[in-house]
Amino acid sequence: MRIAILGGDGFVGWPTALHLSELGHDIHIIDNLSRRRIDTELGVQSLTPMDSIQERCRIWHDETGRRIHFHLLDLAAEYERLKQWLAEQRPDAVIHFAEQRAAPYSMKTDRHKVYTVDNNTSATHNLLAALVETGIDAHLVHLGTMGVYGYSSVGAPIPEGYLDVQIDTPGGPRPQQILYPTRPGSVYHMTKSLDQIMFQFYAQNDGLRITDLHQGIVWGTHTDQTRRHEQLINRFDYDGDYGTVLNRFLIQAAIGHPLTVHGTGGQTRAFIHIQDSVRCIELALADAPKAGERVRIFNQMTETHRIRDLAEMVARLTGARIAWLPNPRKEAEENDLIVKNDQFLALGLQPTTLAEGLLSEVVDVARKYAHRIDRARVPAVSAWTRDLAKRIEHDPEGKRLRSVS
Amino acid sequence: MRIAILGGDGFVGWPTALHLSELGHDIHIIDNLSRRRIDTELGVQSLTPMDSIQERCRIWHDETGRRIHFHLLDLAAEYERLKQWLAEQRPDAVIHFAEQRAAPYSMKTDRHKVYTVDNNTSATHNLLAALVETGIDAHLVHLGTMGVYGYSSVGAPIPEGYLDVQIDTPGGPRPQQILYPTRPGSVYHMTKSLDQIMFQFYAQNDGLRITDLHQGIVWGTHTDQTRRHEQLINRFDYDGDYGTVLNRFLIQAAIGHPLTVHGTGGQTRAFIHIQDSVRCIELALADAPKAGERVRIFNQMTETHRIRDLAEMVARLTGARIAWLPNPRKEAEENDLIVKNDQFLALGLQPTTLAEGLLSEVVDVARKYAHRIDRARVPAVSAWTRDLAKRIEHDPEGKRLRSVS
Repeated sequence: MRIAILGGDGFVGWPTALHLSELGHDIHIIDNLSRRRIDTELGVQSLTPMDSIQERCRIWHDETGRRIHFHLLDLAAEYERLKQWLAEQRPDAVIHFAEQRAAPYSMKTDRHKVYTVDNNTSATHNLLAALVETGIDAHLVHLGTMGVYGYSSVGAPIPEGYLDVQIDTPGGPRPQQILYPTRPGSVYHMTKSLDQIMFQFYAQNDGLRITDLHQGIVWGTHTDQTRRHEQLINRFDYDGDYGTVLNRFLIQAAIGHPLTVHGTGGQTRAFIHIQDSVRCIELALADAPKAGERVRIFNQMTETHRIRDLAEMVARLTGARIAWLPNPRKEAEENDLIVKNDQFLALGLQPTTLAEGLLSEVVDVARKYAHRIDRARVPAVSAWTRDLAKRIEHDPEGKRLRSVS
Repeated sequence: MRIAILGGDGFVGWPTALHLSELGHDIHIIDNLSRRRIDTELGVQSLTPMDSIQERCRIWHDETGRRIHFHLLDLAAEYERLKQWLAEQRPDAVIHFAEQRAAPYSMKTDRHKVYTVDNNTSATHNLLAALVETGIDAHLVHLGTMGVYGYSSVGAPIPEGYLDVQIDTPGGPRPQQILYPTRPGSVYHMTKSLDQIMFQFYAQNDGLRITDLHQGIVWGTHTDQTRRHEQLINRFDYDGDYGTVLNRFLIQAAIGHPLTVHGTGGQTRAFIHIQDSVRCIELALADAPKAGERVRIFNQMTETHRIRDLAEMVARLTGARIAWLPNPRKEAEENDLIVKNDQFLALGLQPTTLAEGLLSEVVDVARKYAHRIDRARVPAVSAWTRDLAKRIEHDPEGKRLRSVS
């Protein structure tokens, strides 16, 4: 298959490109390299030394004889070029990773909120409009987030995208399956909720064939392909905006800093290893809906953990202590989370668990590159509201640290 | 109150500005005049001769001694100027009409789809981000559409924004009230569904006080204020993109053309007179939610009719015949529609019905300005999908007309 990977220079995009190239597909990365521009803006860099996309593609060719093509194109800003590219290349599938994907970055300032909404909404809608206009019957696979569900449970396991409800009617209760009522917790997550509505419309009105992957927090650095050469390595973000909670713990342990837990650590989140993530995309690609079918939605996660349990897991492996900080996010301090992922398990996914993969992250990644860590960049600094920003700033017990255990 | 009216040069915005000015409020219209630019693009004009916004404001001052201020500002493109304006003027309320509002225009070409999504999404989100950033506790009243509900009934009357459902849980069914599952029927309607998600997020995260008005199809031209001077008259759109179905019938009757019904005419839609619309906005303004409350949603409509019944009503008044054409929209040929509007009735709204107001539209507007009608502009030409466009184009019975009765 000819596969366009939009955002193929990013954290999940790049190992997906390698994985699908190894399977023999004709891979075209489209990217505006905005993630590298944001690194420059924030003055941060990946823990792992990361080459240019052009150089990475060259190394992959040297190693395997396979070509990955790279096209510099801004999906959100260059609609006409996108349309022209699709009309010329006519891909069989399009994988859409090309959105700003950090919740803290999306909450940093009003400028970051506006950028995230404008960029993500235009990117997704431009793609949908261009697919209709060019008449290409490509399967569109989109990377969404578990965060569209929100974390306030309805008292039942979170289903895969659609919720069974009974509606009260004059003739008695009537069963219906609806898109799960969305409750995004940040501007970033909100844009993925907007995406869902656009997918629903274009699947219904134009028969576009769309799969939306509601992904948990991705952890892990290496896949079978990124291991093949030092210069194929994936990015590893540990800064307060793009580093997810597990990466922060790993880095803190590697430099002898206490693991920083925000609030009670009772927040339960869903996780998936990067190797499983690229495998899920392969499985989803092969299981395309037909034209006229509703959007197919998978929960792309393999296990759930409370944040404080994760911290304890990393502490046990490394001997690190745990520090308790105020929570800059507006969210429930404690939540349960039971998530269905039956569809991927039925398609043959065999999960890598944190319990078995975490040690290799500590040794092969965090300790190996510890000399590259910029300590000042580790704390999470974006507050979700003006009130929370003030409360953290005026904390008389010290700006950030509340206690260490 | 100081009230900002975004989109105050438009069809509902202008009479709202007059109505609220007459009530003694300090009115500031913010508009980029995009609706006039679109008239120029399409080569059409309002049936009623419409002066510049500056001239209209001058006449209003001459007539009443009251000032309406006008600021040329593009809400979607000029975030920083918007923020600065809000910070300086600190309005008590903001009424947001500033979106591209024609479904057929939004479906014209891919360029129009992209414009509608980019413009409407950025306009709404810029406003929300700027309200948070400036810390202004203004009541935001937004003009939405009944179209977010979709027209496929769940078997019960459409409630005002929120639907009571039972969710199946392991412990038995559990009642919950959710945002009505959206099913927009055009790119334009879809942008109002996106707005809903953004309102929900900003009300929850930042305590913004928001009222969303799900409005039906507005008919009628005059309000008590627009009648006061020929140059205060409201716009009357009759072209295939911006003219709603009732206006099209009125114009067709005035020029002796058969009334064109698309499909079976069994589509049921909700209607409201422009005088009731501005009164509803006054009522909604006074009934603001508190910070932390969920978005308040009203159904802003007063009656429902099938399209063929409307055609027959106009035919009876004018003697016009009815022509049956293929339907360029992707929609159900027949639908029922029962809509709750208890909230506005409880607040004191006394509806103007089509049965009592239609004759004055025929005589005072359609016939009076019939000499200004451009016959070529009356047909609806935007097809909802490529298949529908082809089917209509290749109709061997003649491109548009199927039968006349």
